[in-house]
Amino acid sequence: MQKESQRASAGKEEKQGLTEKKSGDFSEWYNQIVLKAELADYAPVKGFMVIRPRAFAMWEDIQNYFNAVLRKHKVSNAYFPLLIPESFFKREAEHAKGFAPELAWIEEKESSEERVAIRPTSETIMYDSYGKWVRSWRDLPLRINQWCNVVRWEVKQTKLFLRTREFLWQEGHCVYSTEKECVDDALLFLDEYKKLVEGLLAIPVIAGEKTEGERFAGAKQTFTIEALMPDGKALQMGTSHNLGQNFAKSFDITFLDEKANRQEAWQNSWGFSTRLIGAVVMLHGDDKGLVLPPAIAREKVVVVPILFESTKKKVLENAMEISEGLKKFNAFVDDRDNYSAGWKFNEWELKGIPLRIEIGPKDIEKKQAVIVRRDNSQKKTVKLSDIEKEVRKTLDEMQSGMFKKAKKFLDDNTSEAKNWQELKDLLEQKNMVLAPFCGRIECEKEIKEETTATARCIPFGQKKAVSKCVKCGKNAEIKVLFAKAY
Amino acid sequence: MQKESQRASAGKEEKQGLTEKKSGDFSEWYNQIVLKAELADYAPVKGFMVIRPRAFAMWEDIQNYFNAVLRKHKVSNAYFPLLIPESFFKREAEHAKGFAPELAWIEEKESSEERVAIRPTSETIMYDSYGKWVRSWRDLPLRINQWCNVVRWEVKQTKLFLRTREFLWQEGHCVYSTEKECVDDALLFLDEYKKLVEGLLAIPVIAGEKTEGERFAGAKQTFTIEALMPDGKALQMGTSHNLGQNFAKSFDITFLDEKANRQEAWQNSWGFSTRLIGAVVMLHGDDKGLVLPPAIAREKVVVVPILFESTKKKVLENAMEISEGLKKFNAFVDDRDNYSAGWKFNEWELKGIPLRIEIGPKDIEKKQAVIVRRDNSQKKTVKLSDIEKEVRKTLDEMQSGMFKKAKKFLDDNTSEAKNWQELKDLLEQKNMVLAPFCGRIECEKEIKEETTATARCIPFGQKKAVSKCVKCGKNAEIKVLFAKAY
Repeated sequence: MQKESQRASAGKEEKQGLTEKKSGDFSEWYNQIVLKAELADYAPVKGFMVIRPRAFAMWEDIQNYFNAVLRKHKVSNAYFPLLIPESFFKREAEHAKGFAPELAWIEEKESSEERVAIRPTSETIMYDSYGKWVRSWRDLPLRINQWCNVVRWEVKQTKLFLRTREFLWQEGHCVYSTEKECVDDALLFLDEYKKLVEGLLAIPVIAGEKTEGERFAGAKQTFTIEALMPDGKALQMGTSHNLGQNFAKSFDITFLDEKANRQEAWQNSWGFSTRLIGAVVMLHGDDKGLVLPPAIAREKVVVVPILFESTKKKVLENAMEISEGLKKFNAFVDDRDNYSAGWKFNEWELKGIPLRIEIGPKDIEKKQAVIVRRDNSQKKTVKLSDIEKEVRKTLDEMQSGMFKKAKKFLDDNTSEAKNWQELKDLLEQKNMVLAPFCGRIECEKEIKEETTATARCIPFGQKKAVSKCVKCGKNAEIKVLFAKAY
Repeated sequence: MQKESQRASAGKEEKQGLTEKKSGDFSEWYNQIVLKAELADYAPVKGFMVIRPRAFAMWEDIQNYFNAVLRKHKVSNAYFPLLIPESFFKREAEHAKGFAPELAWIEEKESSEERVAIRPTSETIMYDSYGKWVRSWRDLPLRINQWCNVVRWEVKQTKLFLRTREFLWQEGHCVYSTEKECVDDALLFLDEYKKLVEGLLAIPVIAGEKTEGERFAGAKQTFTIEALMPDGKALQMGTSHNLGQNFAKSFDITFLDEKANRQEAWQNSWGFSTRLIGAVVMLHGDDKGLVLPPAIAREKVVVVPILFESTKKKVLENAMEISEGLKKFNAFVDDRDNYSAGWKFNEWELKGIPLRIEIGPKDIEKKQAVIVRRDNSQKKTVKLSDIEKEVRKTLDEMQSGMFKKAKKFLDDNTSEAKNWQELKDLLEQKNMVLAPFCGRIECEKEIKEETTATARCIPFGQKKAVSKCVKCGKNAEIKVLFAKAY
């Protein structure tokens, strides 16, 4: 049985597989997977994208996973307005400056109404409500999340999932009576992001704090998890911010403490977006197409019957039976009779179904079937009576195998530089590079100008050791991770 | 243990309950419930709303229920762009005319790019993609749904959940090779809406087809389910449309049939929105506040301990134990010590928690507790050992009791008119009125002008019987349901 999204491609007449290799033009290879595996499409409006069912199912699975995390931490979902008044952006000066160039304004409808823009993020519109809702220490902590669309009017070239003018995300916004709780939770949610990205998406990340130059507009501290893509570029997978009391001052979020003194509240915010899907494609994909970690694959198994005219009926029946027994993996049978088995193999490899089960007349005689893993093409002949157990085991092995492979790639391509020349050389070799850094914004800017690499983060858990900044030679107490980035 | 949204109100100093009765100023009573039960808030931009956690949880439960329905019918979720090019609106003439006055346009960013507006609905942007994706009969049916926000720039006064410039909804958009399949599915999804609204929300509806004057812009047929609100106004709860081949012609959605002939496709679309939440509030609410059908209440039980200083610890322990045993109903204990039990009763009645369990020192001695139903205030003393069974039973009784009560209200206030005077009188008496109607758009317009009532639908399942149109006296083969409407 086929799903709508699979059917939608069946009639296409263009070449079936990818025409570019991962080791070739990486960007072209990426675009081909996204389009040909039917994950997304360019929209008629420049910079916008259509998220097709195969990718949206991944997003839904991420949402389901993370909604359980939110419930665990007593975060409620809500929905705030799409449009934000001009005056709100101006209340927090740094925030305003950061987002001004990317705002999409609505044409005036009535001259009596204030000019409004589509949300690029929701701090201001949410905190206006928070200012009304928060009265007493009993109201805190206040923890609210929303899943929504945001618009940032990018001028750089569109890259599906990674750089589009509209994207989907979650944004959590919490209010606390103390800074300690605020920072603790900002780190807690970053850690939950790390678990999601490493556990579900099999993408290893480096967690740390952003430098001054890379901080979120209006934040006191920004925390991040960074992944390394095969082209040597870092990809920010999620961030959380300690907003301090900056927004509380601008939006009058105060509370009466237990001694009835009025205090300003502490706030954090945190988010990840549909760009996670782009990271999965880039990091795990291969020359045959998409490779999905089983945990994020809606349909984990495709059964391809090997059909000959004389045994067709029987083989199809067996295939259906296998598929029925693997319902919990959303298994399906590709029973189309206008395509060869080989064509089907290619199609489901392109679309990243984790396991293929092949079954032909001879297999039925021997009460067996062949399981093929998408990530490494390993084949295994298994007894039909063991098939559920074997499928589960193979999916588990695939999930951990994919993470290990990605972790090795990250480790092999993360290096340390002691001086300026080493930093430049290693960046040229497509490495993420850890280097001693003085922390001054002037140095950060110079490094960016001269190498196009940016400070990705100050990784957590560093032992303090004084050395010399790779750029200016002044004392450096920390090491910063530098990389070119998406 | 309290949820964030409950805490958010604890510090407020305004009067606790409603100051208006349902039988008084109905509109004021409705606004008070929505605001005081913390379902929604007015946004700083006119016409927009904040959906607060208590209401958003209802929306999420509706989404979860309906996503299972979608999977059953092989509909995939996807996401299409927020912004639609001006030229798209013009391709289907009726559709363009219907939505033009309500569009929110984006200020020009680059003169080389086409003018774009925020989606008021997504037919055009989705069908542009469908035109690219559909090639062969094998691609059909194509069934896609999206959950998203839409904007329609209303000028009438804002009514939270019922009339706002932005609202959340689902819109299903399907493509078929035959009109029969297309209409069958349009009716199937309408029937699923009926099941959702009657089963989950306990709101009885009348299903039927829209008249010519009330059809969706661009549709060949529109089907609807209509509910009756306590103020005698009808509320459209969901619609599905047979779009015929109108959009297929405009967006070039064609397919090669099995004989390799090119054909135009058939399409339907169907949607319901967050206004369903407004209907729940209006229909079920009472003078004490919100009354939620248990099926749509996230937290179905509140345990209120009756606290005296000497027995406080023991009673709280027992309350926690009861709550733990009722986890599957998301039971929680209101253990705040700065409010009296009576104040707590009022608060959870205002917020519509279906069941309250009271437990005091004497109850503990007798190993019992008191269950109080929100909808009819019935009290029942039950053994602690039976409490889970009793809670389940009482919730079931409450759900069906609420539906029965609402159904009686609908039946008691739906009447038949044989002539013009009867129609006018019954409308004045806040009835929905079934009346013989000739079907001509001129009569429909005149009735609307003279009574402000509109044709809500031609109810399904009518026996054909010729009589005289209540307006013009010409032959009438159908009866139409007329009512004033939201």
